[in-house]
Amino acid sequence: MAQENKSTFQDFSAPKEQVRGGGRLEALRAQMKAHGLTHLCVPHADEQRNEYLPECAERLAWLSGFTGSAGEAIVTLSKAVLFVDGRYTLQAADQTDQDYWTVESLVETPPHAWLKTNLTAKDCLGIDPKLHTINEVDRLTKATEATDAEFITLEDNLVDAIWTDRPSPPNQPVHIHDFEYAGETTSQKLKKVAAALADAKADLCVLTDASSVCWLFNIRGSDVAHTPLVLAHAIVPSEGYAQLFIDGARLDMKTKAFLTQSADLHDESQLMAMLADVVAGKAVLLDPNHASFALKEEVEAAGGTVVTEKDPVALPRARKNPQESDGARTAHIRDGVAVTRFLHWLDCQKPGSVDEISAAKRLEQCRINSAGNMPLRDISFDTISGAGPNGAIVHYRVTEDTNRTLKAGELYLVDSGGQYDDGTTDITRTVPILAKDQAPQAEHIRAYTLVLKGHISLSLARFPQNTRGVDLDVLARNALWRHGLDYAHGTGHGIGSYLSVHEGPQNISRRGMEVLQPGMILSNEPGYYKTGAYGIRLENLVIVSEPLPIPGGDLNMHGFETITLAPFDTRLVDAMLLDDDELAWLNAYHDWVRRELTPLLPDDTADWLAGKTAALSKPTLATST
Amino acid sequence: MAQENKSTFQDFSAPKEQVRGGGRLEALRAQMKAHGLTHLCVPHADEQRNEYLPECAERLAWLSGFTGSAGEAIVTLSKAVLFVDGRYTLQAADQTDQDYWTVESLVETPPHAWLKTNLTAKDCLGIDPKLHTINEVDRLTKATEATDAEFITLEDNLVDAIWTDRPSPPNQPVHIHDFEYAGETTSQKLKKVAAALADAKADLCVLTDASSVCWLFNIRGSDVAHTPLVLAHAIVPSEGYAQLFIDGARLDMKTKAFLTQSADLHDESQLMAMLADVVAGKAVLLDPNHASFALKEEVEAAGGTVVTEKDPVALPRARKNPQESDGARTAHIRDGVAVTRFLHWLDCQKPGSVDEISAAKRLEQCRINSAGNMPLRDISFDTISGAGPNGAIVHYRVTEDTNRTLKAGELYLVDSGGQYDDGTTDITRTVPILAKDQAPQAEHIRAYTLVLKGHISLSLARFPQNTRGVDLDVLARNALWRHGLDYAHGTGHGIGSYLSVHEGPQNISRRGMEVLQPGMILSNEPGYYKTGAYGIRLENLVIVSEPLPIPGGDLNMHGFETITLAPFDTRLVDAMLLDDDELAWLNAYHDWVRRELTPLLPDDTADWLAGKTAALSKPTLATST
Repeated sequence: MAQENKSTFQDFSAPKEQVRGGGRLEALRAQMKAHGLTHLCVPHADEQRNEYLPECAERLAWLSGFTGSAGEAIVTLSKAVLFVDGRYTLQAADQTDQDYWTVESLVETPPHAWLKTNLTAKDCLGIDPKLHTINEVDRLTKATEATDAEFITLEDNLVDAIWTDRPSPPNQPVHIHDFEYAGETTSQKLKKVAAALADAKADLCVLTDASSVCWLFNIRGSDVAHTPLVLAHAIVPSEGYAQLFIDGARLDMKTKAFLTQSADLHDESQLMAMLADVVAGKAVLLDPNHASFALKEEVEAAGGTVVTEKDPVALPRARKNPQESDGARTAHIRDGVAVTRFLHWLDCQKPGSVDEISAAKRLEQCRINSAGNMPLRDISFDTISGAGPNGAIVHYRVTEDTNRTLKAGELYLVDSGGQYDDGTTDITRTVPILAKDQAPQAEHIRAYTLVLKGHISLSLARFPQNTRGVDLDVLARNALWRHGLDYAHGTGHGIGSYLSVHEGPQNISRRGMEVLQPGMILSNEPGYYKTGAYGIRLENLVIVSEPLPIPGGDLNMHGFETITLAPFDTRLVDAMLLDDDELAWLNAYHDWVRRELTPLLPDDTADWLAGKTAALSKPTLATST
Repeated sequence: MAQENKSTFQDFSAPKEQVRGGGRLEALRAQMKAHGLTHLCVPHADEQRNEYLPECAERLAWLSGFTGSAGEAIVTLSKAVLFVDGRYTLQAADQTDQDYWTVESLVETPPHAWLKTNLTAKDCLGIDPKLHTINEVDRLTKATEATDAEFITLEDNLVDAIWTDRPSPPNQPVHIHDFEYAGETTSQKLKKVAAALADAKADLCVLTDASSVCWLFNIRGSDVAHTPLVLAHAIVPSEGYAQLFIDGARLDMKTKAFLTQSADLHDESQLMAMLADVVAGKAVLLDPNHASFALKEEVEAAGGTVVTEKDPVALPRARKNPQESDGARTAHIRDGVAVTRFLHWLDCQKPGSVDEISAAKRLEQCRINSAGNMPLRDISFDTISGAGPNGAIVHYRVTEDTNRTLKAGELYLVDSGGQYDDGTTDITRTVPILAKDQAPQAEHIRAYTLVLKGHISLSLARFPQNTRGVDLDVLARNALWRHGLDYAHGTGHGIGSYLSVHEGPQNISRRGMEVLQPGMILSNEPGYYKTGAYGIRLENLVIVSEPLPIPGGDLNMHGFETITLAPFDTRLVDAMLLDDDELAWLNAYHDWVRRELTPLLPDDTADWLAGKTAALSKPTLATST
């Protein structure tokens, strides 16, 4: 059984057993007492604030059993409180032993707010300053100051002290990201960083975001699941050589020679010592939302001053250069072939003969098979393969325990992506599973069409310079809102170039305060979820275009170039609910998908695609005059 | 001439002569030297941060000649720099003597940024701390700290010391705002403030916003133009009596008796002394974006601690109660009668026979005549009456110097409002001035229709709880943006209840971070401006509705109830550019306007309105199938 369900890149095994009993908590409390603590923070975080943690940093999961992707615990001498967001409320209660843990809302009562009402002047809060950002510690210290509690930053991590079989840090080989895909050399990129440092009046920066380090030095690795990251730090001065902290054993001769063109290489363990050596009297840029408080402590202890500014690599990395954009386009054609072949295959299966896991494995196989001479390096995240009610779980991960058959009359939602040398993809389609001659449900058609209206409205948007994601988010929601519907997630996230599938700073959501700039890649993924019934999400990736003139207009306007290619399901589209512009967009999109993909598809799939992408029109209506 | 152009509430005289020469600057510099200053800030601001200043606070205008509604000067021993925003660049250069003044951008190089690059360690910056908010001083002190310059808060205002004929502070009678319109007693309102103070863990607050004081104590006055404000402060504790600071001579017996039910009365001059008496050991709430730095200094000097939180009256004031909302609806019917009679009159005039001033006067007269037993207390701001290219100046104020004839073939934009006991109105309409049988220009029709699409899209919006203005702004811009057009102002501002015509905290713009809540009144006023040619703006006021269910929907959704009544100009509407929902909205709006106003109009105007509000339809098109 286990063998059958193995895929190359994804694991469908059910979550580990709950961590039963309070043994680990008691061992941790012994450590806390030894350090004079009454309260200890255990965040779901590693030193580089990765979204996917390496195994060795899964301290919260080891301690509590909770395996969600966001959360934090506060352990006191008598209580253990786990803070999670709405996505994980049920899962947290399920995975933790409720005799020992209570669950609180990470959003309504985040740890710093909880501490403000729970700490007293007799208490002492401890944290591992390597696992908390500067801004987080700012909020925590405000809580301790308000309550006159003591606040201690620990030398060593107290969970590590009791986690005897803690895995080793990732130590995978590092490889060069070829210039053909990167489009810029490190020395060209370093000039951009130097300019940003000059603007910030900083002498040097510490790069703490592994995406930034990998992008800047044109390297990739496989230190965390589904993301080609090398977990490394760098010190980059405004002039002169960069310092890159990475275990030498991970580098072959070629990579080492490549890297030493632009950086001195040091072991990761040397970061703090090296920092102490170079910062005296210097202004050191640290991103307060990313850099650890430990770095700030180190800089200040060594006589440097901290300049808190955004990671100077974040924007250059987000604004893809022409090679990166072209790579993304090419990767999306390849990925579109895979997804289209998958959708065709699915359409040929009898309802009831496919389940969520077999569908996800088939899709992965389609990606592997379509890759040709540009192999699929990985999927870009665990495929969300949700049938019927499972489709309504926004971050659903299918396991052997939850695996559901795709049944006639239900909707099937599949959100997936691939990692290729030339780009990272992310696409969601929703299809009706129908028996022969079965018509889709009217409710499914209405909801699908409203989601599609939002998707198209954003696709059609033109916008002036200085527009931020927050300024556009409602375009994807307006049609749903007018029908009393909504979705509880952002509309679009940024995406890396053969890097993270969630990579800012840009996004389209109510928190999207970053200005959208040419070359940025974002997802466009409105949805609708009916709990216990079905989920709909329609996702393409788009590139922000240069501001271009519009006939009859005053201003050059940015727009979104859609790069994802795969048919929407017109069986679920009510053309009467689309306005003329929206219908024209859909038909033009389908034309383009057909033209691009047909030469790359087997004949039967090409024929199928021709039918799926045939132009829709509205029935002619006699209007009363 | 001057007599002829007098209206009851508005002055059309050209701006005063430029302040020629550097005499006033030299006198000011002598004061600066006597106080050891090298730099002095002279903001366009009074102690209560009013939008419209009383004459006695027009220090910047007196010193520089610049009469715009926003700006700040920095005077050094050798230079005088005036900071204004884009609206006022030309006017500032025009009104100041360029031998002595230079103009800088208030947006790109605001005073604190300018100081950061211009101050040296030898300099000393002085400010009047009564005229700067806490947050402003925070930015200024950062600039002096960064440059090691000295920073001094002055006891007395140095401009006042040389402004020998400075007018007296306003001292108009204060009258009671009847419960019939206010809908809540002061003691009911004080309970809301007490709850907000408890939430903020504050023992008391100083109310610095005159709108808040007037709303809380149910009083109105006429201390500044077009806004029924009494310029007064108050200290409101979480328990017990409030302290209201207002010159006793301004109160008749009845008003005094009314006010002493909920407050001790003191002279305005007693504020600082009284504050010093009561704050020792207390937590004092001050709004950092409104309260003066002088208040913070006083609180801290007297042993209090400052809690910086939003004015606790701002939200209760913005969320109109049922009587206030009903009053607004009634005021808008009355105002709609006036505007409709004006539009009818204008439509009957021969092109070339009316000018901007005579139109504005006529409109004012219509408001006075329509008021009936609810007199027009004032217009709510200087009428923006702009013909042809003058319509493209967003904050245009017509004077005898700029007065332009309404010519055939041009557009005329009129933005105006009234102050009535039951509400404040604000409406903009744009009409084509046409000779007999003349058709409007195609370009005017296109632009008008695109602006109208934005206006309607916002009118139709439904939105979930926690939606902010920023989340909706694009709805009013999207149609324009897709045609390469935009407007350089926010889409909507908040409005008071017989109070300020610009009254937050809510607004609809890219800076609109306040959650929209039931009862808030906002304007919906997209526009389009072609410099040197014409301007279009279409403005109604709306009330945010309670969240209401939608058939087939999951969520109760807020919406906007439009309360402004006056016809749009369908000669400028291309129905083919409207989608079906938009056309249905326009026809339903016009139906409602006609139904509500017809009984209140003379027969000829009612007949005219019936024609103006006749339903539009799209021509039937044969579609190819």
